[in-house]
Amino acid sequence: MAATVVGLSLNVVVVCQSVPVTRDQKPPVCVLGAGLIGGSLLRAARAAGYPAWGYNRSQAGVRAATADGYDVTGDLAAALTRAAESDALIVVAVPMPAVDHLLGAVETLAPDCALTDVVSVKGPVVRAVRAHGLGKRYVGGHPMAGTSESGWSATDSELFRNAVWTVGADDDAHARVWTRVARLAVDCGAVVVPVGAEDHDRAVARISHLPHVLAEALAVAGSGGGTLALGLAAGSFRDGTRVAGTAPDLVRAICEPNRDALLEVLDDTIAVLTAARDDLRAHGSLAKLVEAGHDGRAAFDTVRRWEITDIRPGDHDWQARLRDAGRRGGVFTTLRT
Amino acid sequence: MAATVVGLSLNVVVVCQSVPVTRDQKPPVCVLGAGLIGGSLLRAARAAGYPAWGYNRSQAGVRAATADGYDVTGDLAAALTRAAESDALIVVAVPMPAVDHLLGAVETLAPDCALTDVVSVKGPVVRAVRAHGLGKRYVGGHPMAGTSESGWSATDSELFRNAVWTVGADDDAHARVWTRVARLAVDCGAVVVPVGAEDHDRAVARISHLPHVLAEALAVAGSGGGTLALGLAAGSFRDGTRVAGTAPDLVRAICEPNRDALLEVLDDTIAVLTAARDDLRAHGSLAKLVEAGHDGRAAFDTVRRWEITDIRPGDHDWQARLRDAGRRGGVFTTLRT
Repeated sequence: MAATVVGLSLNVVVVCQSVPVTRDQKPPVCVLGAGLIGGSLLRAARAAGYPAWGYNRSQAGVRAATADGYDVTGDLAAALTRAAESDALIVVAVPMPAVDHLLGAVETLAPDCALTDVVSVKGPVVRAVRAHGLGKRYVGGHPMAGTSESGWSATDSELFRNAVWTVGADDDAHARVWTRVARLAVDCGAVVVPVGAEDHDRAVARISHLPHVLAEALAVAGSGGGTLALGLAAGSFRDGTRVAGTAPDLVRAICEPNRDALLEVLDDTIAVLTAARDDLRAHGSLAKLVEAGHDGRAAFDTVRRWEITDIRPGDHDWQARLRDAGRRGGVFTTLRT
Repeated sequence: MAATVVGLSLNVVVVCQSVPVTRDQKPPVCVLGAGLIGGSLLRAARAAGYPAWGYNRSQAGVRAATADGYDVTGDLAAALTRAAESDALIVVAVPMPAVDHLLGAVETLAPDCALTDVVSVKGPVVRAVRAHGLGKRYVGGHPMAGTSESGWSATDSELFRNAVWTVGADDDAHARVWTRVARLAVDCGAVVVPVGAEDHDRAVARISHLPHVLAEALAVAGSGGGTLALGLAAGSFRDGTRVAGTAPDLVRAICEPNRDALLEVLDDTIAVLTAARDDLRAHGSLAKLVEAGHDGRAAFDTVRRWEITDIRPGDHDWQARLRDAGRRGGVFTTLRT
């Protein structure tokens, strides 16, 4: 497998040399999946000047995208053959359960293309990519954007404006692919945070997957109070349950693949709630929880980002240095050519 | 105590007869506490044509309200004496820990006035009101409105527009006071839901106090992930922790007095989360939680209100009939004179 990977890497260098990319000519992008994220990426990439086309499994999605003037096909082989011929960056933009099928097709039809994804979890994608021998061409991504809507009808070329977009910085990341993925994210209006797969998954368990779980639990508790309770519900319940309006299959596809990290933070949170419950029962006080929560929200409101300027992908130890910078709030809002 | 209460009730009838209220002349309102809710009520009541004045403990609040042209004093005795002289409706608009002190002053200076409150919990207020011998003149209220802001600077005459405002319908509610409180709420733009104190407290534990507790726990979990996690946080975390930005003392004053009902729903919610955690660990699935949560949110999004037209306060068994209607989604958006 290692020999194959090296071979792919060498192939790519040849391809990159044969298709030089200038500032005026953006390299093509092939997006697999034209749902909320993939479809919005198609829109944003085209708006930023990238030649961009896509594949979508459902014919309804293909028709909707085509009707809006986007180049989306239901023919996966055709989309990938075109990607291979034009050295496109391939973006896997489907929920985790559909990733393996697409990677199998990429392995067969476009194994030399640069590869990224916008899936909500990174460890399982990294493992699937490696299992298909595509590891050396892959740098993962995750735009932290979305709504409770889904499908082409919800797509928006401005979805990523000022959103965070993580770009994988594990030790095997290829500098040229890294830069290509990061540039696409920046060109879509996003702020790039470099992060390793494991750090990513632990972080999003806390700030994306746990919010889903708590929103579902709150919705269960509210509806347990029947018409009266739901009729009295106002802003705190509405906001706290907003993401429980997301389609159940999508929530499961987002959260379940991050099982280990989510279990860890769920354990912690159940312990925090149990301690608060016990304090309230024994002493009538929620002081400890409420003060810690208020501090936590204040930390969120005041978290500072700073521009990474001193680390160039490809430099010695660049991946570890990027990961460290990302942990400390470092971002890219622009990329040197 | 019972004899005293009956005496007060008789006194009031005399007062009401001596100060007839027409459609053109709104009865005066005395608001004790000029924070977010009380101050907004002063603004809304005046905008609706009520003679309205208030008391506020802090001189800073008095100055801010006065500067905006509102009649707010730091002299509690003066505010209450004026209330007694003009048969004002007194509105207790302070957090639960400050309620008892104010009721003591009402008992001394204005025991015959109609009395309501806008406190976030009803059982403890009912008990305090009865302890001060004011039960027969009291009908509780709770506008389901607020922000994470507090104090006069956050007040807004439109805060109650289309908000739900519960009005107590326990068996000892006095019909004339009930109507007066409900009319004030409607005139402030609110939708009135009749509800008993116990039903109220169990319902708000689910849709107001639990959201606070879960928001605090989510903020704790997010900040436990440090700068990286907080830097990746987007809409679901922002919305899910919004109310954790509320001042800790205020959150405690809202939640802790509703201990029994909050403990019950916290127990339920910890059990729901524990079962979900166990499912995720054993089967990799969050299906049960996610589907129930989605159903719960859908129930919230589709809850229907209907206008109560066939129950007149003072009719036979009117309080029980109002409570039953409120449980089934019945509201008042207007009140017959």
